[in-house]
Amino acid sequence: MDTTEETRRTALDYVDSLERRDWPRWSALLADDVVYEMPQTRERIHGRDGFAQFNVDYPGDWHLAVRRVVADGRYAALWLDVRVAEDRMDACVWLEIGADGTITKVTDYWPDPYEPPAGREHLVERY
Amino acid sequence: MDTTEETRRTALDYVDSLERRDWPRWSALLADDVVYEMPQTRERIHGRDGFAQFNVDYPGDWHLAVRRVVADGRYAALWLDVRVAEDRMDACVWLEIGADGTITKVTDYWPDPYEPPAGREHLVERY
Repeated sequence: MDTTEETRRTALDYVDSLERRDWPRWSALLADDVVYEMPQTRERIHGRDGFAQFNVDYPGDWHLAVRRVVADGRYAALWLDVRVAEDRMDACVWLEIGADGTITKVTDYWPDPYEPPAGREHLVERY
Repeated sequence: MDTTEETRRTALDYVDSLERRDWPRWSALLADDVVYEMPQTRERIHGRDGFAQFNVDYPGDWHLAVRRVVADGRYAALWLDVRVAEDRMDACVWLEIGADGTITKVTDYWPDPYEPPAGREHLVERY
C-alpha cells in the first residue's frame, strides 16, 4: 500500500472511530504531539490527551459520515456530513500525516449557513 | 502525467487564473455545463457563462493564494487564503474533474469566524 492509500485509510479510520466513540482506536491514529486547530475560533489543542478529552466531552448526539475523502501523499481532506439531533451541517477537515503514519495535525472548519448578499439573484438558483 | 497530477495542475491553474482575472484561461479549465455550489447559502449556478459572470461581478479587491492543494484522481480540495482589502479569511473548495480533464463541479465553503462556546477553555489555547 503506498503512502496515499495509507493516508486514505487513516483518514477514513479517523472518522469511523470517532463516529463509534472507539477512543482507543481513534487515539492510536494520532501522534502524541498532534495539534488540533479550529481557525474560525482561533482555538488550538496540543497533544493527544487534550484532543481526546475535547471529543469525549463534546456535547450533543453528534454523528459523522464521510461525503468525500481526498488523499494525496501525507495530506488528506475530509468533507463530512455532520448530524446533531435534527440539525445537519457540513465540515471540512484537513489532515497531515507524519513519517510514522500517525496524524500530526487536524484543522477543522465548521461553515455556518448564511443569507446570500443581494445583487446576484439573476445568476443563481437556490436549492 | 497521471490523472492526479493533471488534477493538481488544473486546481492550481484554477486559482492562479482567478487571481490574475485571466478569464479566457480560467474559462478554458471549466466544462460547459460546470455546476458551482455554495452550500452555506444554498446557491447554485449552472454553466460556465453564469459562473464566469459571477466571478467577474464579484465585488471587492479580492486576492487568492493556495495554502494547500490535495489532489486524488479526479478530485481535488483547495485550502485558500483569501484577502479582500484588509480582511482575510479562509476558503475550502472541492473540485471534480471530468473524463476530458475539465472541471465539472466546484463547491465553495466560506467559513466565518465565531466565538467559541463556553466550557472548553481548560482544553484549548487561543491564537
